[in-house]
Amino acid sequence: MNKFSIRTDLAIETTELLIKNAKKAEKEEKIDGVEVDVEKSERDDITVTWVKITNEQGAKSMGKPIGNYVTIESPAMKENDAEAHEHIIKILSQNLIKLRNIDENSVILVVGLGNWNVTPDALGPQVVSRILVTRHIAHSLPEQINDSVRAVAAISPGVMGITGIETGEIIKGIAKSMKPDLIIAVDALAARRSGRINSAIQMADTGVIPGSGVGNKRMALNEETLGVPVIAVGVPTVVDAATLVNDTMDMMLGAMMSESKKGGEFYEMLSELHEEEKYNLITQILNPYVGNMFVTPKEVDAVIKRLANIIANSINIALHPAIQIDDINRYMN
Amino acid sequence: MNKFSIRTDLAIETTELLIKNAKKAEKEEKIDGVEVDVEKSERDDITVTWVKITNEQGAKSMGKPIGNYVTIESPAMKENDAEAHEHIIKILSQNLIKLRNIDENSVILVVGLGNWNVTPDALGPQVVSRILVTRHIAHSLPEQINDSVRAVAAISPGVMGITGIETGEIIKGIAKSMKPDLIIAVDALAARRSGRINSAIQMADTGVIPGSGVGNKRMALNEETLGVPVIAVGVPTVVDAATLVNDTMDMMLGAMMSESKKGGEFYEMLSELHEEEKYNLITQILNPYVGNMFVTPKEVDAVIKRLANIIANSINIALHPAIQIDDINRYMN
Amino acid sequence: MNKFSIRTDLAIETTELLIKNAKKAEKEEKIDGVEVDVEKSERDDITVTWVKITNEQGAKSMGKPIGNYVTIESPAMKENDAEAHEHIIKILSQNLIKLRNIDENSVILVVGLGNWNVTPDALGPQVVSRILVTRHIAHSLPEQINDSVRAVAAISPGVMGITGIETGEIIKGIAKSMKPDLIIAVDALAARRSGRINSAIQMADTGVIPGSGVGNKRMALNEETLGVPVIAVGVPTVVDAATLVNDTMDMMLGAMMSESKKGGEFYEMLSELHEEEKYNLITQILNPYVGNMFVTPKEVDAVIKRLANIIANSINIALHPAIQIDDINRYMN
Amino acid sequence: MNKFSIRTDLAIETTELLIKNAKKAEKEEKIDGVEVDVEKSERDDITVTWVKITNEQGAKSMGKPIGNYVTIESPAMKENDAEAHEHIIKILSQNLIKLRNIDENSVILVVGLGNWNVTPDALGPQVVSRILVTRHIAHSLPEQINDSVRAVAAISPGVMGITGIETGEIIKGIAKSMKPDLIIAVDALAARRSGRINSAIQMADTGVIPGSGVGNKRMALNEETLGVPVIAVGVPTVVDAATLVNDTMDMMLGAMMSESKKGGEFYEMLSELHEEEKYNLITQILNPYVGNMFVTPKEVDAVIKRLANIIANSINIALHPAIQIDDINRYMN
Repeated sequence: MNKFSIRTDLAIETTELLIKNAKKAEKEEKIDGVEVDVEKSERDDITVTWVKITNEQGAKSMGKPIGNYVTIESPAMKENDAEAHEHIIKILSQNLIKLRNIDENSVILVVGLGNWNVTPDALGPQVVSRILVTRHIAHSLPEQINDSVRAVAAISPGVMGITGIETGEIIKGIAKSMKPDLIIAVDALAARRSGRINSAIQMADTGVIPGSGVGNKRMALNEETLGVPVIAVGVPTVVDAATLVNDTMDMMLGAMMSESKKGGEFYEMLSELHEEEKYNLITQILNPYVGNMFVTPKEVDAVIKRLANIIANSINIALHPAIQIDDINRYMN
Repeated sequence: MNKFSIRTDLAIETTELLIKNAKKAEKEEKIDGVEVDVEKSERDDITVTWVKITNEQGAKSMGKPIGNYVTIESPAMKENDAEAHEHIIKILSQNLIKLRNIDENSVILVVGLGNWNVTPDALGPQVVSRILVTRHIAHSLPEQINDSVRAVAAISPGVMGITGIETGEIIKGIAKSMKPDLIIAVDALAARRSGRINSAIQMADTGVIPGSGVGNKRMALNEETLGVPVIAVGVPTVVDAATLVNDTMDMMLGAMMSESKKGGEFYEMLSELHEEEKYNLITQILNPYVGNMFVTPKEVDAVIKRLANIIANSINIALHPAIQIDDINRYMN
Repeated sequence: MNKFSIRTDLAIETTELLIKNAKKAEKEEKIDGVEVDVEKSERDDITVTWVKITNEQGAKSMGKPIGNYVTIESPAMKENDAEAHEHIIKILSQNLIKLRNIDENSVILVVGLGNWNVTPDALGPQVVSRILVTRHIAHSLPEQINDSVRAVAAISPGVMGITGIETGEIIKGIAKSMKPDLIIAVDALAARRSGRINSAIQMADTGVIPGSGVGNKRMALNEETLGVPVIAVGVPTVVDAATLVNDTMDMMLGAMMSESKKGGEFYEMLSELHEEEKYNLITQILNPYVGNMFVTPKEVDAVIKRLANIIANSINIALHPAIQIDDINRYMN
Repeated sequence: MNKFSIRTDLAIETTELLIKNAKKAEKEEKIDGVEVDVEKSERDDITVTWVKITNEQGAKSMGKPIGNYVTIESPAMKENDAEAHEHIIKILSQNLIKLRNIDENSVILVVGLGNWNVTPDALGPQVVSRILVTRHIAHSLPEQINDSVRAVAAISPGVMGITGIETGEIIKGIAKSMKPDLIIAVDALAARRSGRINSAIQMADTGVIPGSGVGNKRMALNEETLGVPVIAVGVPTVVDAATLVNDTMDMMLGAMMSESKKGGEFYEMLSELHEEEKYNLITQILNPYVGNMFVTPKEVDAVIKRLANIIANSINIALHPAIQIDDINRYMN
């Protein structure tokens, strides 16, 4: 069984699946080499989950590199709720600093991955357009604020279908040329559970593989490939069609089972299948038809703007101690 | 059974469903008051289907007003195939003229419905941005081409979430103010069969209800509401999530049935359901989760551009006899 | 002498010119039927000037309709100075309410005039994209905030070169259809003094003639033409080329006069010309070459965003008492 | 006298000025080390001028590097004249190939310089969005067209105010990473003569200094800095304000001189000044007021689209022998 085929970019979803499979197999519900730490805030229904992959065994089980994955979840982030957003921004920027302490002399490059022409994939470019860019003026700032403003650059490189160049090649070239101390890469992700769409922000200190969401998987962006540490920030903005069918069928069968006793054999047969096997079966059937489709909410345009605002504000505050929580949105365009 | 609940904007899909249901009921496979005429072109695999609803009985069965619905289908329209596109443009403009003869002194208003911020819903606005607008210069054109250039205006009114105004109110107001002789309204639609996405263009002389695709249904745009005849041009750019689940389950069950004999009872039970009942059951289950989602291909940005190009060229050629097929794209931006 | 040929959209510039001409003619420096009231705030170098045209004689001298024109000037509005912007927003929204009291049951339509494809003309559309639109949800708001939220709609109709329709026709049609109680029309203007570009916001209760700035003059938008009172909000974002040449020559000649005694006769000759005569002479010479050009600062993109933010925030706060000064930017995208 | 202060990006304008100054000084009207070759086509009023700088003396006089500068001029390129545009595209692509023969195995990177948010500076990004990008699919093309399709990549890096990174740094990094054989860099330029705005396309095999037009001068992009030959393609889309004032004053004085005899001394004084001295005087006076302004035509949005279409088509045809003149626009979006 190849764990890597579990189609999700969220570490918390992988842990959920592993625990579910462990339950089925009546094994211990603990993943070796993986620590999970959950903190909930009643206000705005915010959950912060740290998943720490601590050794090779954990990395293998999770299908993800050793490192830290922190996910902030709240249904309020996709709503038009300015007060909750400020709360989320605060928590997000605090966890970003906790994930990686940023020296005051650091040069930071923020990269907006994804295709600006496809609404749910435009999250990265939309964040970049709201980042407070200072690297070109850092030397000319007044001394009193100089200590608390970092040198920040930002770029949206586009996707291979637009440029003809692998995104990793572009970022690698720019990184070699401008030599940042840290890269923060923002991307749209794919979720496994449709209920999590636009309601969770994951940050990881292990880098990112662009195109996990809407696009196709590409060269990894991480310290190994770029020579610079990479913080990945991502939001699941889509589920893939096969996942959706899978989830719905589960719910449907459950519903029908409780109503009638019909469908029993079919349900049992499905139940016997491992998650991956079932997913693969669906993918196989769907492929010629909808294998290349994604599912996203109708109000995707407004939601992507809200998420871009939250993430850009969090990055701006985390990078520039001069910017206080009260200044939120002040530097937005 | 409410025929109107069949969720499709395409007349050809409604006829398919009615015939399928008739078959199941072992009734005659003919719909009273509906004439269907199909013409195929081997080159570029183009199918032209005219559905004519000729009386109230037909309108009731179809859930659509009396009038003519012509659909041009070709898998080539979503591909990067310039030669096939020219062929499709030719056929499309010929059928548009056949659908409604346009007098040389006519003033035509082209309306691009939909939300320009949501890629699969941006078809209408993208067509409008490629329309050759001439109404403001019509009086100053040289005499030799004057006879063969119509007075054309074009506007994309946005959607209610952006303007706070019902789209129908905006168009009605403009129509009263500028008094066009004909309105051509272009919109993204929802298909029932995912295989038809971005591969069919429907034109109808009965008007349109905006927001059938990604948005929500609104005030109808037709001769009754606007006082001006309305030609609707639409492309299915999305399927709704429930439809997708429904189709996949059908295929999956079929596949499993032929492999094993398991699942038999469940399949039989499903088979007994009418199309609509099954769809409604799925919608009910999905609703709290994905009721408000749409499904669209990953390369939606490039495909919408191609379709906008095809439709805008067809309209430009149909409206201005001065523009020949060789001039295709000449007036594009 | 035709006073109307003084090419400026700002009432304060017209008064300046009239007073200058009066001085030259050694007449009294007061304009009959025009009251001017100036208030300065040291903080952020803000000047608020109310010009009230009180009778027909004043209207004739000014070349503008009877009514109130309030201009807020500050060099800080074009800079990246969030604190000063908040101060300006406060003053702007207070003066907007002073200009016209808005009843709590009012329906307001905000119109963004201008061409979104030409940066200095995109001010109106950029304001509209930041307006808090509520008309479509006004009936469903919770009761406790219902009293303090007005029903606001917003639209950017484009320009005649894009739509083929006179902008006035579009707005007139929409106004008839949705029946607002007040229209607020935002447009880019042309200034006479290049120093005022992007540093002054004029609000008037007399309506607006679209296209005064970059475009060409069109049908007026005012209570007479639309049947609804119209507040015009404008910023000079360009000067026309002839004005620039005129101003520079004045400065140049002055500079040369003080240096040498050469050029004396020429200077005298120019001095003898009335402002308008000189301007007309320059226009005549320039026309075949640059008659259709405009002059604007290089950083126009960033400045237009800042101004759009200031104006949209001011309108949002003035229209919705529920929004406090602390909420500034909260509802921005 | 510093020849480099002549503010023009067009080699043909520099030669004009040098010859004019030579005439004034009653010297020979020939520039040492510079060959000028002019060819006119009556049809569409097209002029093709090759300026070849052949030695260091020529480079010093011209203030430009040794190399070839070819300029195609036609008033038709800014008009809505599809037939003339096709003629211009043909001539442009032929001269591009003449300027540099491109091997069939070449990898070419097209770079769109300039700020997409400022209309007259958006030429480069608009060309890039119309380039037929093939590098990522070059290996998978059918054999029969493989020989006649080059591997083309394209990117618009933005400007330093947007990214915080010097454009040269970005391009240098990408060039090192993807190793193209040739870079074609497209940029908006500044003209000296306002009559030439949007009516001339210059191509040079000596590279480019970005930001010569609307922006500020930056690190040069040429074989020396990038390690790859660079073809620069540029269109003057603006004149700077000082140039405009200068030209107008010349015309104005001329006009007044012929009318009256007044102003004689002033005119003589001005005539005695060298071109540069006069320009510097004007700049000095203008600087605090309009030093940072540009002048551009009102219909700049439509004209930039037309020019982007012409240039992108010419590059597509020059790079891909498979694309014929009949295919013009076929691959446009």
